[in-house]
Amino acid sequence: MFAKEVYVSRRKSLLNLMRNKYGSTGLALFLGNAEAPQNYRGNDYRFRQDSSFLYFWGLDEPFVGAILDLDSGEERIFGNDVDVEDIVWMGPQKSMKEKAESVGVVATAAYNAFFETVVAAKAQARELHFLPQTRYYNALKISALTGLSPEAVASRRLDGKAASISLTKSVIELRLIKEECEIKALDHACNLGISMHTAARRGCKLGVLEQEIVGQMEGVAISKGWGTSFTTILSQNGETLHNHSHHQIITDGRLLVVDAGVESNEHYASDFTRTYPCSGKFSTKQREIYDIVQSCNDFAYELCRPGISYRDVHLQTVTKLMSGLKDLGLVYGDPAEMVAGGLGGLFMPHGLGHNMGMDVHDMEDLGEDNVGYDDDQKREGGVGLANLRMARVLRPGHVITDEPGIYFIPALIAQFKQEGCGKFSASDLKSLVNFDRLEKEYFDFGGIRLEDDILITADGARRLGDSRLPILSSDIEKIMSAQ
Amino acid sequence: MFAKEVYVSRRKSLLNLMRNKYGSTGLALFLGNAEAPQNYRGNDYRFRQDSSFLYFWGLDEPFVGAILDLDSGEERIFGNDVDVEDIVWMGPQKSMKEKAESVGVVATAAYNAFFETVVAAKAQARELHFLPQTRYYNALKISALTGLSPEAVASRRLDGKAASISLTKSVIELRLIKEECEIKALDHACNLGISMHTAARRGCKLGVLEQEIVGQMEGVAISKGWGTSFTTILSQNGETLHNHSHHQIITDGRLLVVDAGVESNEHYASDFTRTYPCSGKFSTKQREIYDIVQSCNDFAYELCRPGISYRDVHLQTVTKLMSGLKDLGLVYGDPAEMVAGGLGGLFMPHGLGHNMGMDVHDMEDLGEDNVGYDDDQKREGGVGLANLRMARVLRPGHVITDEPGIYFIPALIAQFKQEGCGKFSASDLKSLVNFDRLEKEYFDFGGIRLEDDILITADGARRLGDSRLPILSSDIEKIMSAQ
Repeated sequence: MFAKEVYVSRRKSLLNLMRNKYGSTGLALFLGNAEAPQNYRGNDYRFRQDSSFLYFWGLDEPFVGAILDLDSGEERIFGNDVDVEDIVWMGPQKSMKEKAESVGVVATAAYNAFFETVVAAKAQARELHFLPQTRYYNALKISALTGLSPEAVASRRLDGKAASISLTKSVIELRLIKEECEIKALDHACNLGISMHTAARRGCKLGVLEQEIVGQMEGVAISKGWGTSFTTILSQNGETLHNHSHHQIITDGRLLVVDAGVESNEHYASDFTRTYPCSGKFSTKQREIYDIVQSCNDFAYELCRPGISYRDVHLQTVTKLMSGLKDLGLVYGDPAEMVAGGLGGLFMPHGLGHNMGMDVHDMEDLGEDNVGYDDDQKREGGVGLANLRMARVLRPGHVITDEPGIYFIPALIAQFKQEGCGKFSASDLKSLVNFDRLEKEYFDFGGIRLEDDILITADGARRLGDSRLPILSSDIEKIMSAQ
Repeated sequence: MFAKEVYVSRRKSLLNLMRNKYGSTGLALFLGNAEAPQNYRGNDYRFRQDSSFLYFWGLDEPFVGAILDLDSGEERIFGNDVDVEDIVWMGPQKSMKEKAESVGVVATAAYNAFFETVVAAKAQARELHFLPQTRYYNALKISALTGLSPEAVASRRLDGKAASISLTKSVIELRLIKEECEIKALDHACNLGISMHTAARRGCKLGVLEQEIVGQMEGVAISKGWGTSFTTILSQNGETLHNHSHHQIITDGRLLVVDAGVESNEHYASDFTRTYPCSGKFSTKQREIYDIVQSCNDFAYELCRPGISYRDVHLQTVTKLMSGLKDLGLVYGDPAEMVAGGLGGLFMPHGLGHNMGMDVHDMEDLGEDNVGYDDDQKREGGVGLANLRMARVLRPGHVITDEPGIYFIPALIAQFKQEGCGKFSASDLKSLVNFDRLEKEYFDFGGIRLEDDILITADGARRLGDSRLPILSSDIEKIMSAQ
């Protein structure tokens, strides 16, 4: 939790934006998260507060709400004080009054008064502003209050038919640019992520079950932070982008992709990817691909500075990647033309990176397009670019991931070969892609991804965390041979 | 996953029960769980299938459903096959046809056909049987299909107005008595739980942050199993029954309560509690209370056999506990009379134990009273007995926890002193409880709980797991001094 003044100032900025930029009136509603049942109510998943609630109102507990009155400026937090039975199970707690004071809010009321207040405001035809609702429970509640369907209140399309355009855009505008206290929190989360990845690298030994390493990593995340910032990806089938099964034995000759991060106790995320040779030594073929990805990671980082769009960074990086594959004889055309035609997605079917903050894909609950795109940058189609989550022009205070990758996905290669892609017909691709070699030599290769977290500064960028996770192929081999 | 025949036989038993014991007709609906979003859709909590779905249909993935036609006996599994885009993100998958065959089901259809089938059956006025819906997403879906409110389909009251009485009772009847393959799975889960607790005992050292130990424990749970079977309780404030904050430093003179379990990869739970002296040595006062709780744990275990109700085991154990406290001079009355009057709950405000299986409180989603009580045993009031989750007459194949505890909860002691309890007025309690000593000597004591997992056998009981976690106070001190 930050100092009281941080929350006071954020709410003041929000009020100013909504009033002065958007001319909004009425009530801005913030409903904190409920517990999410795992097996049954009472055996819940670990409680995770709604990030926007945490950002403006700071309280990290279930069943609280808050309302900002855009007309009077009044702020109120809603939640219940505990009784003796609660104390038996949960221990003594601070009063809601004390909790609210710790984030600079004076007025409090019982949890149910949140709903009564909204009903009364609706009866007076006051405007109700709410964010897109990710959690089913909250969608149900907001649906009941507004008369909109649960699907509508969950929708992240800002078409004026459900979630508030002005509230959603104002929240995104504020949260996209990280404050000094947030940058410190992100540096800390990245240091924890680096510790977690160090455990992974040390655990990568022939004969070990993948799940064993995941446990060692996540143990670090839980010992030092809130837990993982997303489900750990640790797989020798690195060509599967989000592989969540960990039942294989670490095997000589294969590559291990580890994509994981820690969420700190303060609820800030980190997100790193490294790819290790299971044996500790890359084969020539592996090192060739690895070094292309590693140089693309560095190249993208060097491009990052205020004023360039992350769409351009993505495209330039994929162009460099295709150029590397051309040097290896796997593709034949002009790299920039191949990328413009949509061929980059065959090898890198995802975007270069995404915003990161309290959420690992920051604010994705508010809509990927609303966060990563704006009036200047519109989402495009095609494998790869369609999955680019962040395209905006970079500004100081943006925090983004830099995660190029090369994958050999038999099903995707077969699809491109048969159907073509983007501007290229199947017959065009015959002269652009060495399908024969891909099929004969690379179908069991897997994939490689390398990811760092980057802060955009006034005059460039810096990598978050005190020291960079080792990334050069020669360094990886040196460290792994010593462990 | 068990052998195909296990699932075939379970569904056959279910069909027989519903047809022959309850005379049910129509369709029995099983809706598997959806992903539960944590921060946003796509950043989900770790997927946990609905336990009853797993029990009868075996498939451990989101967005599948199944229908058992009680009239024709037809079984069908609903789920979608993957396309190339899915393969890019999730890797190649078996077809639904193959997956269904692995649990002995021939007929499959797309996921949406589940909903179409139910709509068609409803139009024909066929009866629709569903279980109480714990997950908000599924409650919404079943609500839309049946026209009942989301609250109604989530309700665990079997009053004929929502969840099916015959389906719920049949599922409970089957799942309460564990099969041989389940007992093996539970022994395995308990062995993992013992490993996890061993890590906790080794991690308990002066100066260490509680959270550090939690990470070490949960790392074991994730390395060896699916994860924890419930949110780990690890606290020096053991008097708070479900304390989930871990921000304190292990401190000389305090006690550390560790209540935690592993859910195995096969989705069976374990649940153990041990209490350690932080310094490695109990004080005299701590040992006195500890030894009472430990002897109560053994006493309850010795009572366990087919034919005795767990309500009786609870009451006899709490009577022994009060007798121990009387020997220490903390209470004065006849132990059995004090328990009958409701005073046991002052020191042990929870029940002796609960059913355990695929869920740590087994089937609590189907209703605690439906699972732990029956026509012979009705829920009673009063602190302690009101929280007894399992009261049934024990039968071979029941798996239950045995978890007596003694706590000194200042807020509860103050409440009893002021208001009395059960049959005793505040003035009665003056002559039954040594409030003076409790207030002067025990307000900073904390609490002690000791828990094992027990299988009821044909002629008695046995503790699950290959070897018992050390429990004697002398053994604990010996082991901790050596570590």
